Amino acid sequence: MYKLKKLESGICAADGFYADGVSAGLKAENAKDMAFIYSASECEIASVFTTNKMTAAPIRHFKAKGEFKTNFVLINSKNANAMTGPAGIVDIDEILLTLPKEAQNPVMSSTGVIGVRLPKVKIIEGTKLFDLEKREPHSAAQAIMTTDSFSKEIAFEVTLEDGSSFCIGAMAKGAGMINPAMATMLCFITTDAKVTKDEMQEILDSATLRTFNAASVDGDTSTNDTVLLLANAESGVFHKEAFAEALEEIMLFLAKEMVRDGEGATKLVTYKITGAKDDTDAEIVAKALSNSLLVKTALYGEDPNWGRIASTVGASGVEADEACLSISFNDLCVYKRGTLLFDSAMEEKASKVMQLESFSISCDLGLGEGKFTSFGCDLGYEYVKINADYRT
Amino acid sequence: MYKLKKLESGICAADGFYADGVSAGLKAENAKDMAFIYSASECEIASVFTTNKMTAAPIRHFKAKGEFKTNFVLINSKNANAMTGPAGIVDIDEILLTLPKEAQNPVMSSTGVIGVRLPKVKIIEGTKLFDLEKREPHSAAQAIMTTDSFSKEIAFEVTLEDGSSFCIGAMAKGAGMINPAMATMLCFITTDAKVTKDEMQEILDSATLRTFNAASVDGDTSTNDTVLLLANAESGVFHKEAFAEALEEIMLFLAKEMVRDGEGATKLVTYKITGAKDDTDAEIVAKALSNSLLVKTALYGEDPNWGRIASTVGASGVEADEACLSISFNDLCVYKRGTLLFDSAMEEKASKVMQLESFSISCDLGLGEGKFTSFGCDLGYEYVKINADYRT
Repeated sequence: MYKLKKLESGICAADGFYADGVSAGLKAENAKDMAFIYSASECEIASVFTTNKMTAAPIRHFKAKGEFKTNFVLINSKNANAMTGPAGIVDIDEILLTLPKEAQNPVMSSTGVIGVRLPKVKIIEGTKLFDLEKREPHSAAQAIMTTDSFSKEIAFEVTLEDGSSFCIGAMAKGAGMINPAMATMLCFITTDAKVTKDEMQEILDSATLRTFNAASVDGDTSTNDTVLLLANAESGVFHKEAFAEALEEIMLFLAKEMVRDGEGATKLVTYKITGAKDDTDAEIVAKALSNSLLVKTALYGEDPNWGRIASTVGASGVEADEACLSISFNDLCVYKRGTLLFDSAMEEKASKVMQLESFSISCDLGLGEGKFTSFGCDLGYEYVKINADYRT
Repeated sequence: MYKLKKLESGICAADGFYADGVSAGLKAENAKDMAFIYSASECEIASVFTTNKMTAAPIRHFKAKGEFKTNFVLINSKNANAMTGPAGIVDIDEILLTLPKEAQNPVMSSTGVIGVRLPKVKIIEGTKLFDLEKREPHSAAQAIMTTDSFSKEIAFEVTLEDGSSFCIGAMAKGAGMINPAMATMLCFITTDAKVTKDEMQEILDSATLRTFNAASVDGDTSTNDTVLLLANAESGVFHKEAFAEALEEIMLFLAKEMVRDGEGATKLVTYKITGAKDDTDAEIVAKALSNSLLVKTALYGEDPNWGRIASTVGASGVEADEACLSISFNDLCVYKRGTLLFDSAMEEKASKVMQLESFSISCDLGLGEGKFTSFGCDLGYEYVKINADYRT
């Protein structure tokens, strides 16, 4: 047996990890815009990257290195270094060369506007402000924010039966372009668990499907989406099941936080799809719902418009039949296998559910055993406002 | 050779067709909410319906009739008769039985809210107001509107070399849920050309791909999308090429009108995709762009954010490479095969293009011969407003 304990901490929770954020003048008003993560000892790396074909330079740079270990991650906000071609790669190489000598095989991660070269001089000046002895997880989490309205951090301590323990800490940024993610979703996770690269990658891939890949703000997938998991083994301890559980808890928390803080979002909605022909069909329906403009605007209007939900299920392309479908808001069933249940009394109850900050919409397709759960938010005026003039 | 002439007319342009709209009290303030189309002689029918699995009752009712001819279409707005199960079919049968005896094999078409039984009594009372000798195309076109801000009508006269001629007239409604279409897209086309059912269906299917199926307002596909083409052969004239050209002109006009009148839309944007690996890839990209929230909000903000366009191309899943891609706003190339061209002078020019009510965004993927053109609009506060409380 083992025990998970949530810590009021973030990216520096695990032994041997240091991090901080500084201001390099990329954001206005001296806001923090660059962060580092440093480990005294080198780390195994597991990673998940965007499926966008216009892969940003930092990801192409990372992938070109092949198999390697690192002890240093440099992160900047405000500029994604995407659509910058070979020059974008050269810029990264030049920047990384100027890092403190402690940085071994350093990697870079960027988020912000697409299609503009990195402000190299400012970034190099910024790296000179780094103090590798700093443990300022909150400061690092703030530096990687773009349109996020709050920073996203979490950590867990895992204690095994014999009293030995390891930690996992994380920080993320989200806001827009989350499909799993964009504009950009970045997540950094550090651990002192003694885990092998292969094991860590397998656990990370599996957890990603149910967490970041189940979260949608606007259905757009970024050029820069990145999840990096660094393990320095300093605790000397590992327990696969416990590690997997803690990691998934962390990723689920961050995925939900990203949706909750989706651009202009006022509600976090969990779409629980069951009874689909298979899990793939359920996943298609769950994502169609969390991405539907008509569903998202109905959520914003707190309008229990179950007809739009039914229509979106039908439009998703999977096998579906109105005579088998059931729809619920939390525990309130509003449509059951072809029977119209909705009257003014039920509408009043359903409206109450829709006024909650967080609730679930369940669709049982009534056809099989397939299931999937996704997370989405509403779409209101604020989303339009943020995105109508993000770049300028 | 032949000549096409656009007429200031609509659904009654062709010989032998009658239509009108009446108020049955479905909409507020005595607005017109029911229409009929009647032909003195029976018509061959070609049709295209929604791919939504939650097919509305009128479409299931139509399909259940198998092969048939008709001379009467009854249309109501405000209620979609969707998600109403077998009762929805019974309601249609009961309503159609009360039509004037001239109606042979009548069909029904509905648009409006999903998941509420038809107000049968009101509709039956409404049919009693029909005068089958009326030719009021504009009145009919107004009666089928839901959130449309203007009615959509067009007609063409086709004159052949020998002086003989035929007409095609049409009306449509759109507004929201257009992917091809919803909330709902309905289109009715009448002609006195002497065309066979099979020929007409083939021409309609082909034109649909490049017109209604290339138009997007919000990426949601309705339960009720319907295109009906009725031919009564009264002119005794036909010319396949001329008919196909005139029909496609009509459908293209209506598709663009629907997008231009998309809920809250202020701009009509044509996405011209070329150089994709094949036409299927080009279509995927064109539709991804016209449906992307980030692109649509950038359009609304008149922000020439070509980076979001590149990112959406990359996220669409098709083969793409930033070193081969080129992007233009009208004739202004802003990104060319990996070269960043964008500076403040160009930004100023690009912003001018974005301020137009109608312009094109071209993406040459630089990989092959695949091409497709789609139509989309921007997304602003008004879309949110309309859809946050459409039902209530």
